[in-house]
Amino acid sequence: MSRKHRPRKLFKLKKQEGSGVGAPPGLLITDPLSPAPVIRAIAYKGDELFEGDITDLGQIPELLKKYDMTWIDVRGLGDAEIIQNIGEIFCLHKLALEDVLSKYQRPKVEDYENYIFCIVRSTHKVNIIGTEQLNVFFSSKFVVTFLDSGGEELEPVRERIRTKSGKIRQLGADFIAYSIVDAAIDSFYPVFEDLGEDLEDIETEIIEHPGPRNISHLHNVKRELLEFRRAVWPLKEALNRLLRSEVPIVSSYTTVYLRDSIDHTIQLIDLIEYYREVCSDLMGVYLSSISNRTNEVMKVLTIIATIFIPLTFLAGVYGMNFNTDAGRWSMPELNSPIGYPVFWSICIMIGVGLLLTFKKFGWMGGFGKLK
Amino acid sequence: MSRKHRPRKLFKLKKQEGSGVGAPPGLLITDPLSPAPVIRAIAYKGDELFEGDITDLGQIPELLKKYDMTWIDVRGLGDAEIIQNIGEIFCLHKLALEDVLSKYQRPKVEDYENYIFCIVRSTHKVNIIGTEQLNVFFSSKFVVTFLDSGGEELEPVRERIRTKSGKIRQLGADFIAYSIVDAAIDSFYPVFEDLGEDLEDIETEIIEHPGPRNISHLHNVKRELLEFRRAVWPLKEALNRLLRSEVPIVSSYTTVYLRDSIDHTIQLIDLIEYYREVCSDLMGVYLSSISNRTNEVMKVLTIIATIFIPLTFLAGVYGMNFNTDAGRWSMPELNSPIGYPVFWSICIMIGVGLLLTFKKFGWMGGFGKLK
Amino acid sequence: MSRKHRPRKLFKLKKQEGSGVGAPPGLLITDPLSPAPVIRAIAYKGDELFEGDITDLGQIPELLKKYDMTWIDVRGLGDAEIIQNIGEIFCLHKLALEDVLSKYQRPKVEDYENYIFCIVRSTHKVNIIGTEQLNVFFSSKFVVTFLDSGGEELEPVRERIRTKSGKIRQLGADFIAYSIVDAAIDSFYPVFEDLGEDLEDIETEIIEHPGPRNISHLHNVKRELLEFRRAVWPLKEALNRLLRSEVPIVSSYTTVYLRDSIDHTIQLIDLIEYYREVCSDLMGVYLSSISNRTNEVMKVLTIIATIFIPLTFLAGVYGMNFNTDAGRWSMPELNSPIGYPVFWSICIMIGVGLLLTFKKFGWMGGFGKLK
Amino acid sequence: MSRKHRPRKLFKLKKQEGSGVGAPPGLLITDPLSPAPVIRAIAYKGDELFEGDITDLGQIPELLKKYDMTWIDVRGLGDAEIIQNIGEIFCLHKLALEDVLSKYQRPKVEDYENYIFCIVRSTHKVNIIGTEQLNVFFSSKFVVTFLDSGGEELEPVRERIRTKSGKIRQLGADFIAYSIVDAAIDSFYPVFEDLGEDLEDIETEIIEHPGPRNISHLHNVKRELLEFRRAVWPLKEALNRLLRSEVPIVSSYTTVYLRDSIDHTIQLIDLIEYYREVCSDLMGVYLSSISNRTNEVMKVLTIIATIFIPLTFLAGVYGMNFNTDAGRWSMPELNSPIGYPVFWSICIMIGVGLLLTFKKFGWMGGFGKLK
Amino acid sequence: MSRKHRPRKLFKLKKQEGSGVGAPPGLLITDPLSPAPVIRAIAYKGDELFEGDITDLGQIPELLKKYDMTWIDVRGLGDAEIIQNIGEIFCLHKLALEDVLSKYQRPKVEDYENYIFCIVRSTHKVNIIGTEQLNVFFSSKFVVTFLDSGGEELEPVRERIRTKSGKIRQLGADFIAYSIVDAAIDSFYPVFEDLGEDLEDIETEIIEHPGPRNISHLHNVKRELLEFRRAVWPLKEALNRLLRSEVPIVSSYTTVYLRDSIDHTIQLIDLIEYYREVCSDLMGVYLSSISNRTNEVMKVLTIIATIFIPLTFLAGVYGMNFNTDAGRWSMPELNSPIGYPVFWSICIMIGVGLLLTFKKFGWMGGFGKLK
Repeated sequence: MSRKHRPRKLFKLKKQEGSGVGAPPGLLITDPLSPAPVIRAIAYKGDELFEGDITDLGQIPELLKKYDMTWIDVRGLGDAEIIQNIGEIFCLHKLALEDVLSKYQRPKVEDYENYIFCIVRSTHKVNIIGTEQLNVFFSSKFVVTFLDSGGEELEPVRERIRTKSGKIRQLGADFIAYSIVDAAIDSFYPVFEDLGEDLEDIETEIIEHPGPRNISHLHNVKRELLEFRRAVWPLKEALNRLLRSEVPIVSSYTTVYLRDSIDHTIQLIDLIEYYREVCSDLMGVYLSSISNRTNEVMKVLTIIATIFIPLTFLAGVYGMNFNTDAGRWSMPELNSPIGYPVFWSICIMIGVGLLLTFKKFGWMGGFGKLK
Repeated sequence: MSRKHRPRKLFKLKKQEGSGVGAPPGLLITDPLSPAPVIRAIAYKGDELFEGDITDLGQIPELLKKYDMTWIDVRGLGDAEIIQNIGEIFCLHKLALEDVLSKYQRPKVEDYENYIFCIVRSTHKVNIIGTEQLNVFFSSKFVVTFLDSGGEELEPVRERIRTKSGKIRQLGADFIAYSIVDAAIDSFYPVFEDLGEDLEDIETEIIEHPGPRNISHLHNVKRELLEFRRAVWPLKEALNRLLRSEVPIVSSYTTVYLRDSIDHTIQLIDLIEYYREVCSDLMGVYLSSISNRTNEVMKVLTIIATIFIPLTFLAGVYGMNFNTDAGRWSMPELNSPIGYPVFWSICIMIGVGLLLTFKKFGWMGGFGKLK
Repeated sequence: MSRKHRPRKLFKLKKQEGSGVGAPPGLLITDPLSPAPVIRAIAYKGDELFEGDITDLGQIPELLKKYDMTWIDVRGLGDAEIIQNIGEIFCLHKLALEDVLSKYQRPKVEDYENYIFCIVRSTHKVNIIGTEQLNVFFSSKFVVTFLDSGGEELEPVRERIRTKSGKIRQLGADFIAYSIVDAAIDSFYPVFEDLGEDLEDIETEIIEHPGPRNISHLHNVKRELLEFRRAVWPLKEALNRLLRSEVPIVSSYTTVYLRDSIDHTIQLIDLIEYYREVCSDLMGVYLSSISNRTNEVMKVLTIIATIFIPLTFLAGVYGMNFNTDAGRWSMPELNSPIGYPVFWSICIMIGVGLLLTFKKFGWMGGFGKLK
Repeated sequence: MSRKHRPRKLFKLKKQEGSGVGAPPGLLITDPLSPAPVIRAIAYKGDELFEGDITDLGQIPELLKKYDMTWIDVRGLGDAEIIQNIGEIFCLHKLALEDVLSKYQRPKVEDYENYIFCIVRSTHKVNIIGTEQLNVFFSSKFVVTFLDSGGEELEPVRERIRTKSGKIRQLGADFIAYSIVDAAIDSFYPVFEDLGEDLEDIETEIIEHPGPRNISHLHNVKRELLEFRRAVWPLKEALNRLLRSEVPIVSSYTTVYLRDSIDHTIQLIDLIEYYREVCSDLMGVYLSSISNRTNEVMKVLTIIATIFIPLTFLAGVYGMNFNTDAGRWSMPELNSPIGYPVFWSICIMIGVGLLLTFKKFGWMGGFGKLK
Repeated sequence: MSRKHRPRKLFKLKKQEGSGVGAPPGLLITDPLSPAPVIRAIAYKGDELFEGDITDLGQIPELLKKYDMTWIDVRGLGDAEIIQNIGEIFCLHKLALEDVLSKYQRPKVEDYENYIFCIVRSTHKVNIIGTEQLNVFFSSKFVVTFLDSGGEELEPVRERIRTKSGKIRQLGADFIAYSIVDAAIDSFYPVFEDLGEDLEDIETEIIEHPGPRNISHLHNVKRELLEFRRAVWPLKEALNRLLRSEVPIVSSYTTVYLRDSIDHTIQLIDLIEYYREVCSDLMGVYLSSISNRTNEVMKVLTIIATIFIPLTFLAGVYGMNFNTDAGRWSMPELNSPIGYPVFWSICIMIGVGLLLTFKKFGWMGGFGKLK
């Protein structure tokens, strides 16, 4: 399963290449690996709907004039100039655009009077696990989203806008922005379901066939949970602050829905903490099962060695070559007709005696379960 | 005991099937496994009492008109349409109804001006452990509860309403709602008593006969405690917020009782934390007892091997076939009349010497306790 | 020592038998094991002092009329009716009386306008460790205390009231109530001194003669500390809330003393946390000492086996019965006159060589300390 | 080093002997081990300076009248009467004096309108580690300090007062009190430097020669850190509260300096937490190094035993006395001229083969590092 | 790699030598190891730019008069007098200068009405890891920085001032101060990237070739993270307090940028906590892998010993010298023609039987992975 791969993406914190230590704040530098931007627009006013790709940035002010709500969706952050131009059209702050390009920001909500800037993180089931940064700027009239890659989670939102009958078109840009944020939050649900199943598998294995692979699986799950926690935890606080600040851009209608999003975020955080505790508990179960097995292996060795080492000594004694003719006390057993049977009797007595002792120690049970 | 089964229910967080990523918020989708709804009504006005099943939703407005207090109890969440219709009768918010259907919500209290929406979780002693979601909507005139299954804990409340003489009928819908919430909280008490007994059993076993099964029992108890913590912890905060907000729906009479419920919730949380600490302490006791046993097994092996390995070597030496005729120094012991007795003397001396050394090391005590 | 017994009392949370799930709140149900109530009264007005047992509840209102301060001390909670009657005389809330009877409440302070209801927990050095619930109701004119058992800690308070010269009689019921609460807090001090001595003993043993009994002692101490934490922790918060709320029942004179009680509570909490950290540190020391010992035992075994197993093989070789007449290379050593001395020389060389190697490994030191 | 001794002082919480459970609050009872009080006074008014021992308490009011600032320094708490008399001269609250005598109080600051009462704890490099209680009462005109023993840290403060040119004499009693508190805080610095060096030593040893003594050293350091945490942690909160309350006794000039003291306290707390984390990390390093060593010892044993046990068996086989004349298949090898050389060849092949296998397992490296 | 060295710098908390316990606060004492100060000035007013070293402190007031913004950068804290003189020129508080010289202060921001005093800590990739104290005083007209060593991170700021076209010269001293603080924060980024890579290397090694060196690497990373946490954590709080206090020195323009710095600080803290959790998780993975290996080594030993010890005993039996002529039961096997083949058959049967048993135990798999 691809989900077993280690999440590497967020491991290192990288400032943009080139924006070295002490670079002027607000300088836009793109990651050379980012794809070139593709700008998709969707706009509506009552029944009128526009949807299409933007190739000339000059189209945007027209859309803003003509429609009640315009959503500019920029995919690919590979061209600093285009992003800066879009920023100028919507009067976005340079520091916010710098955050957009850095791609490893924590979720946050910033209120810039004329517009609100949200960073949320989303995830995808198909790819190697990790989270993607989804940047949302919105005012009462427009929504601008920036994504470097991914973004499949936004398709249903776009679909709902397309549907004429849907209620969403009667609502403002703030509701569209909420829908986008909510879609990003929702993108964690199926991944968490998978994580839950992984944990159940690991639990079953640890209880039934503990082995070193359990630990690396657990380790991967823990790493993913750490990633997800960093992606979800700050969002709760950020959305809460947005709600409390009562900015006029967010209508009271949307507020109720935002509260629902916070609820979902809390639920995710709750589940992350739950999974983390299950993980650390499973680690304990695993360690104790290894200790147990070492103990059982020891017992097998000790039983065998304790029984046969004395017997081997005894056999060794009667394999000695002392000359039986040398004297009366020189190994007279060897010439006794009952010497050999007596030797075996003693061996059996010692063996049985030790086995009974071990049984009394409780060492003899449960070997069938050794793994 | 059925209580030993692993609680699986809350393990995975599932949004409703079909309400995939990005589905419009407030869409009601039912779990195909949920039973069809059965609607039970109980209503009173002074001495007058109505109790019966509702088959036609049109009856509900009549009940509301005729009686002071109407409690609609919906069991089974398998039909989205019926639930939506009930929601419309009582003007319940779509997002709240969505929460009702998702079945894995955290406890919470939401104040929707005209009514209050509570989610609490209850548990049952008989079944596989886990918690069930109990959804309560109430205003000053009605209580509406939604349950997917279970709900035995509500029977005593209904019984108290039936009893003519009981004080409860003089009180409003808020007190009925309180009684329902309190019954859900009370449902944890007998389960916690059982958990306490389980923990005592595990403790006794770990101290007297530690074994791998202890760990899986402990693991199960921990998992249950995690479930219960998720089910109880948020309730305290939610009820506190309700109290502080001083909504007019909740009378000051009921407020005193609600404070008592918060006390019970705190007591449960307290106990969960206590049990969790006992669990982790027992884990430590278990691990140290395994380490101890491994140490004891090692000692047995070491004592036996340390004594007999040198002796076996000695016996091996005198079993060598060096030709005693080959020279003066070629195993003259073999032909000495005292060779054999001296051999045994040396063996006994070595054995006794080593035993005394081990005794000095303190290794010889306590083998009777090995398990 | 009786202190070594496991504290079981608070382990299980029990609602009263009979007050099953969903029982009406405020119903008074007594524990069948509780003794019948004995009611002791002490009252004063200036120099006048009354002290005696109350057999007829009708006496109480007379005392209240006649004296400035009346303290009704109810020992034994075995009769719900009497308790209810006392509650009615002093107008105590039913939910508060329910708490009195449940016996496993957390410490709390509740302000019921006309009186204040405190639950504190006390402990006793003599008995099996655990804590007892001490219920105190007080207004400006009366103090009512309910105890199921114990209560020796209240004797000095009563003694101080008896002493004519003492300042206490000039003070109101609030000061008496404070004195009672303070006596309950003080009852932990000698028990904590004992706990501290136990911990020192365990520490000395773990460092000098570690063994499995240390763990069960530590486990017991931890369990007691958990009990005590539950008994003391909430009190700090409760008393603080009382202080801040500035209820008129508590005079400013008493306030200074109450602050002192909070200080004592904080000191106890502080000490509990300190002891708990010492416990978990000792657990670590114990586990590392076991690991160490296992390591030392291993070394002994490895040294002996590593030296003698190769030698035994060599002796075995020369005990083989290859026919020396069969050919030139067929064990010519056996017939060599220096064969046997050379064999011993090789053995000694191997043994000494291995010993020196082990010495280089640092394995040879410190065996005298093995335990 | 004396610093290696275990700190015992604060281990047990002792109320004064005699002030048993329920003793009246505010009763002054001295510890019989405390020395008799020696009262040293220092007072100034502009250039005028008085310094000397007080033998007659009647001198104190005179000093207060004559000088602007009087510092009464009481060393030794062995006489309750004298302390009570001093308390009466300065109108100190009985509960505060009780705290002075109990000697095991947490640091705190209490504002008694006319004066402020501080408890701080100081430490000394020379003695067995532990902390001493330093009680400071101060108003705008006087400072009274009570110490049971120690107090060397106050000498520099006294010295600065003596120096005519120093700025300190222009400042009020609040600055003197600040200087005393600051000196107590400063007394931890050299001890912490030593602790840091101890930790470095332990770290070096654990990494280079891990052994059981490391653990007891670590344990001692942890115990000391626990002591110091209890002595420093509450001070930060107490001083902060003093600053915020803006009592008129503390001038704004002193306030700046007090803030500096809080900074120092935070720095100490910071360092305690840092050291504690280093301790627990070192514990982990130690435990893993023991596990490693056990593993290495095991490997040595396993390699030796695995190679020689099969060879010994083989040698045993050819030491058997089956009669070679009994039949064709009865040990014909013994009479073969190449039997013996073939035996050795097989032995060497088995030995080398196993060694290579172990090498493939990676078991053969790093034995030089065994300790 | 130099990064593998242990960070020692902050390990010990040192007050300046000479400023012993109780030294008067505000006394300036220099560290004898500090270099002599070099004073670099940069000042501008519109297009006019001055840059140069200051040798005569009298130049500074002139610069202040002539230019809008003057930045005095003092490198090397080896001369108390010069620092005191600079302090007097800018009216800096003595306690602040004492903090400058102590070099081991926590980051903080202090508001002294006419100027603000910040302590931040920076780090450098090239040197042995540790953090350096960067002291910044700024008002609306000047910035004064004190550094003992390092300071390369400030070069880009100076460079930006030099660039005529840059926006920075239009901005006040508060923005320069922000730029300096931001540069110090940015100095952690490349070091954290390296730390991330180190952690990845350690992770790969622990999973593929676990060994004791992993632990000392992990230990070093943990120590560095502890250092960094102490250097970064307090900064967040300090900057937040600065923002909230709304001092007039900091313009609203700079405020937006400061908020961005706080964001960066939070990101660093976030990452430190993330790395710490990864560290402790890796520790767990390492310990479990050692336990596993010990278990595997045990199995090898047990399999070999369990198979061959009984066989060796059997071979020993038939090596005994009982006289076959002594009687009918005296080792008749030795003279049987099928004795020897039967012996081998039994040996093979025992061996194969035990191997199959071990296979059933699941012991035979995965030896190829032993390390």
